[in-house]
This record gives sequence, structure tokens and C-alpha cells, in this order.
Amino acid sequence: MTATPIFSKGLEGIIVAESRLSKVDGQAGRLTYCGYDIADLAAHASFEEVAHLLWNLRLPNAAELAELKKNLNARMALPPDLLAQMKLYPRTAHPMAVLRTAVSASGLYDPLAEDNSPEANRQKALTITARIPTILAAWMRIRAGQEPLAPLTGDVKLAENFLYMATGQTPDPTAVEAVDRYMILLADHEMNASTFTSRAVTSTNSDMYSAVTAAIGSLKGPLHGGAIEAAMKMFLEIQDSGLTLQEWFQQVRAGSRRIMGIGHRIYKTEDPRARILRDYARTLAEKTGHGHIYQIAYDLEQIARSDPYFVERNLYPNVDYYSGLALYVVGIPVDMLTTMFAMSRVVGWTAHIMEQAADNRLMRPKAQYVGEMGLTYTPIEQR
Amino acid sequence: MTATPIFSKGLEGIIVAESRLSKVDGQAGRLTYCGYDIADLAAHASFEEVAHLLWNLRLPNAAELAELKKNLNARMALPPDLLAQMKLYPRTAHPMAVLRTAVSASGLYDPLAEDNSPEANRQKALTITARIPTILAAWMRIRAGQEPLAPLTGDVKLAENFLYMATGQTPDPTAVEAVDRYMILLADHEMNASTFTSRAVTSTNSDMYSAVTAAIGSLKGPLHGGAIEAAMKMFLEIQDSGLTLQEWFQQVRAGSRRIMGIGHRIYKTEDPRARILRDYARTLAEKTGHGHIYQIAYDLEQIARSDPYFVERNLYPNVDYYSGLALYVVGIPVDMLTTMFAMSRVVGWTAHIMEQAADNRLMRPKAQYVGEMGLTYTPIEQR
Repeated sequence: MTATPIFSKGLEGIIVAESRLSKVDGQAGRLTYCGYDIADLAAHASFEEVAHLLWNLRLPNAAELAELKKNLNARMALPPDLLAQMKLYPRTAHPMAVLRTAVSASGLYDPLAEDNSPEANRQKALTITARIPTILAAWMRIRAGQEPLAPLTGDVKLAENFLYMATGQTPDPTAVEAVDRYMILLADHEMNASTFTSRAVTSTNSDMYSAVTAAIGSLKGPLHGGAIEAAMKMFLEIQDSGLTLQEWFQQVRAGSRRIMGIGHRIYKTEDPRARILRDYARTLAEKTGHGHIYQIAYDLEQIARSDPYFVERNLYPNVDYYSGLALYVVGIPVDMLTTMFAMSRVVGWTAHIMEQAADNRLMRPKAQYVGEMGLTYTPIEQR
Repeated sequence: MTATPIFSKGLEGIIVAESRLSKVDGQAGRLTYCGYDIADLAAHASFEEVAHLLWNLRLPNAAELAELKKNLNARMALPPDLLAQMKLYPRTAHPMAVLRTAVSASGLYDPLAEDNSPEANRQKALTITARIPTILAAWMRIRAGQEPLAPLTGDVKLAENFLYMATGQTPDPTAVEAVDRYMILLADHEMNASTFTSRAVTSTNSDMYSAVTAAIGSLKGPLHGGAIEAAMKMFLEIQDSGLTLQEWFQQVRAGSRRIMGIGHRIYKTEDPRARILRDYARTLAEKTGHGHIYQIAYDLEQIARSDPYFVERNLYPNVDYYSGLALYVVGIPVDMLTTMFAMSRVVGWTAHIMEQAADNRLMRPKAQYVGEMGLTYTPIEQR
């Protein structure tokens, strides 16, 4: 027990776990998963390889990767009663609230839900990761009045299967690659707020569905995953505003607008994911005829990075700035962008949940009471 | 930012918020809500008065209390589509997983779900608190193959309405009083793990349904709310074991069994709630003809408290030890006990969520990376 209480509302500088998963070097602008640079993985690996890496602390060989893909594929279909529930959800519901509810409900159908053994947790990590793309694709169809589709079987990437189930069409290879790469880059990020939430829930010895459901609720917030949508909406608003970028930026200078997706608590230099996603978003935007919206994002970054306020405070685009753009140009609806973040990050959450469970201590901080004391109950007639 | 990182897996001694809600004095064994001693409130107040206290930092006058009760009553009925979903849940599902899912789903029907303004949050605190008893009573009936019941209208306490909806009968006044007092005692407890989880989710500016859903998942864990069920199951097992208490306790001495519901991280003396609940459980057990099971709990406490291991480590019964017993003897099924904890604590969660939202900072601690570094991706054929 720490002798002198420490006040830290944001838990800055408080280390809550040892981890073998990812490492963020905020000074150098470097992110590694289990020792591999994120740029190396984004250039060469698939999302499934990265999932194996985070769940097993090493990359798979060919047989292990085939086994993992088979295993994920076999778990993608949803229980019919879960789909029946989703068809009852109001179509205007927030997609992250839908995902939170459907993932929680999917646990009701998992016979391993209440088994917290390491082996059961490994099985559940696969099941939850496999079901999220199906839940999201089903929701995109249900809210459009279409019947959900069953997943493709066989040697199909999760990213490809998601796009197929959402659209009913064989997806464009460019779109598959965009989603797959996005999912690699977003799979884990040390002790971010949603991952921390999943570990806090696990610390009561609660189950993986409870922890992932909580993490989805945390990621939903605009200070976390919600920022990806906010950044994309901002680019579209600028496009529709009729203002020049310089005119729009005057509102930022005047303090009446904020630029979404710029600044990060840990990175004091460029977010390495933003660097990769900027190049990637440009290529994708040009390929898909969306060069104009990329240009808005890029030019706004240049204006911000030449403004003393942003330069002095080391405010650079973070992962949210370009990642929504990369998905938007391949056809992901703006209001589904944060759910795509969840579809990737679930691998990190489940890896962290297993790590927390293996070496757990209940997370129980303190509050400093600053209210009144010594009051005595008076009968209600005397109040 | 703290200059030197501090390692604290359990966040002991880390203060994450200033609070005007409850204060735990672990040395003196004292718990206060907004300055009122819990013993004073348990003796004189109703749960609804305590809810007003925690939400408004003061006790209500007669008009305010009447308004609050009317407001809660008007919000108890569930959307028909939510009940239709619950009827699809597997009947064997864990009641806390059912509650987690149904509370998350109920947010889909709340037009204020995505409005995080203080006024919307006050409305949502009422709605969520009012709906949980209805959800739990509906689930008790659905899983028994019975039709859920609509809440009673008029000047009816939440505790009474819950018992009516669960059984379809006018509840015994003793049972109403037992549930009402239990709900007062469990309504808040400073920065416990589920409350902390709800504040961590709120810290991303996420919504109240996300935060409460996460808190339910956290409370579900056996190191937190799950202990109330574990303690009650232990008493019943001892009863059915045919062993004397001394014989059963030998297993504890030998290290092959643990006593559930004893010991607390904060209290180094008797938990004030346990003191109240012990007396209260005795009275209720005698009234309902369950004196034998109370006697097992009481005698086991005496044996433990005369054992050097428990004495030296300041291990006293905590709130979970006698609270399940008080509810069990008035007819609450053992596997619903943790959900009763949630039905009470939701007042504390929502009060803390509003407090966090009013003075927020994103909770983002750190992990210490202890894995490998400097690895390079090798093609899969070379692994």
C-alpha cells in the first residue's frame, strides 16, 4: 500500500500492470506489438497474424495461422435468437450502443461465458472477435431493412467477410486491404482508456463478456474512439461549409471550434499510426475518387502544424485524424466508424483481459471526501 | 503529470476524484452518505430518500420526495420490445449477464441516451434506477415460464413494487422493509470497483447507459458483488454438509476452504453495514422461521473471530456476509442476490457518474512493458 495518498484524477504516470503486449514510446513516436514495430506489421502481416501475435506473444507459423482462421470462421455465425433480438432494436440507435448490447447478449449464448479458466478465455477471445464483424454487418443491413447475411465459409479474411456480409457483394480488394490494415494498426495500444476499463472489470474476477462490453462502452466516448467519427464529420462539414480552410481555421484560432483528432496524451511527436494512415488514406482516396476530402484533411493538418499554438504544445494528428478517412473512402458509413475501431481493438482487449486474469489484483482506488460531515437525520416534516 | 511513475496494480492509495457522496472511515468502521451516518439513515430513512440525498446532496422535503416517487413510478414500465428481447434470452443465463444486457438494451429506447447534459443525466439516473427492479422481476418470471407483470402505480416504494412484480402478490411488509433497508445500506460505498469502473467509462465522455452497463459487469465479479452469493451458498453448503461448524472450519484452517464475505481492503475493523445487517438478519430469520441458517452464519463468525489468523489480520465480516442472508430469508433466490446489490448500487453509480461528468479528466494510466523488443517480421514460410 502506498503510504502517502497520491491525487491523480487522470491516473497519469500510474502504472497499473506489467504487460508483454504493446509498448508506446511517446517521445520517439513508436508503437510496437510484442516487440514488432507497427510499421513492419502494417506492411507485411494480416490482421489474423496480429491477433495470433497478441494472443500468443509470437507470430504464427503457416499451420497455426490456418487453424486460427478456420477457428474464427467457424465462430462467426450468430445465434438465431440473437439476430431476432437485434431485429427488435430501434433502427435509429447509436451503433456503438447496439454493439454494446449485442456483444453482451451474445454472452448469454456462450456455454463458456461463466468459465474464467485460461483455456475458456482463449476460446471466448476467438468467439467474441469472430462475432463482432457479423454483428456489425447484420446491424448495417437490419437498420436498412435488409435481411442479415451468413458469413462466407472457407479461407476468407475477417475483413473480407465483414465487407461481404455488410454489402452482399464480393468486396473490392482495395476495400478489404484498407479494413485489414486499419485493423492491424488499431488492434492494441497499451493502457488506453477502454483497455484499462476491460482490465478494471476483469480485476473483480468478472467474465470476459462483461469486460469487453464495458470496453465498448468506454471506447464509445468522444474523448476516446468517438473521436474517429468526430474527425471525419469535421472534414465533411468543412467541405460543405463553403468556407476556405483558412476561413474555417479562424474559428479554431478564435477558440470557437476545436480540431478533432489532433493531440494525444502520450505522443509528444507524430503518432506512428497517423503517419502510416496518412499515406494510406491518400492512396485509397485517389483510387476511389475521394481525393478532395483527403486534401481537406491534409491541408488542415499543414495549417495547424504551422500555427504556434499547435507547434508549441506538440499537437500532432493522432490515429483518429486519418483513420476514419481511410475507411470512409472505401464505403464505411460515418456513423459506423467507431464500431470499426471496436472490431479491431477487441483483440487487444481480450489479450489484456487474459494478461490481467493471469496476475490479478482488484483495482480499488480512493476518493477524497470533500463534502459535509456530522449531519443528523431530521424527520421529513421538519425539512 | 506525476514525475516518477508509480506502480500500483490495485490502485491502493491513489485518489482519482474529489467526492461529496460517501465517505468510508476504515479505521473507525464508519460509513456516511453526504454527511449522514449510515446507521442513522438505515434506522429512519427510505431508499427513495437516500436516492434523493445521493443525487442532490441533501435529503428531500415532503413535496420533493413525493415528486421523486411519482417520477420513479412513472418510469418503471419497460418498452414492450425490450420485454420481447428478454423472452428470447436463454433461461439458464447468469442473472447478472441478463441485467447487463437488458440495461444496455434499455438505453436503445431512451431518447436521452446520447444526451450527456446534466439535466439529461438526472433524467437517465431516474429511468435506469426505476427500470432495474422491473427488469429483475420480469426476468424472475420469464425464466419460470410466467408472464412479466406491469408495475403497481401510485404511492408504492420501489422495494414493494419489485416484490410485487416478482411474485404477483402483495408482499409481506417484513420483506418490503428488508429489501428497502438493504437498498439503503448498499446504495453507495465511495470508490469501490464498480463505481470506479462507471467513472472510468464516463471519463471518455461516454454516456450513462455505457457506464452503468460496465458497472454491472464489474459488480458481477466474485471479488466484488459476486461475494454476496458466494457467502450465502457457503452457509447453505455447511447446512447440507452434515459437518459441525468446527469440523467445517478445519478445512479453512487447513487452507483448503476460504470463508466468503470476510475481510475488506478498506475496513480494518467491523464493517458498519455488517453490524447493522447482522442484527437485522437475525430478526428477519427468526420472523420467517430461518433461525437455523442465521445461527450457522453467526457461529461461524464467532469461530473465525476467535482464530488467530483472522484476529491478527483484522478480518471481520464485510457487507456481503450477512446481506445475502437478510434477503434469502425473505424469499430472494440465491442466484438473484448480486442483482439486488445492483438494484441498490445503481443510485451510487449514477450519482458518481454525474459527479465525474461535472469535473472530468480522461483516465489513462500506463503499463510497464516487460516483453521482448527489437523483433523483425519474418515471412511466414520461415517460421
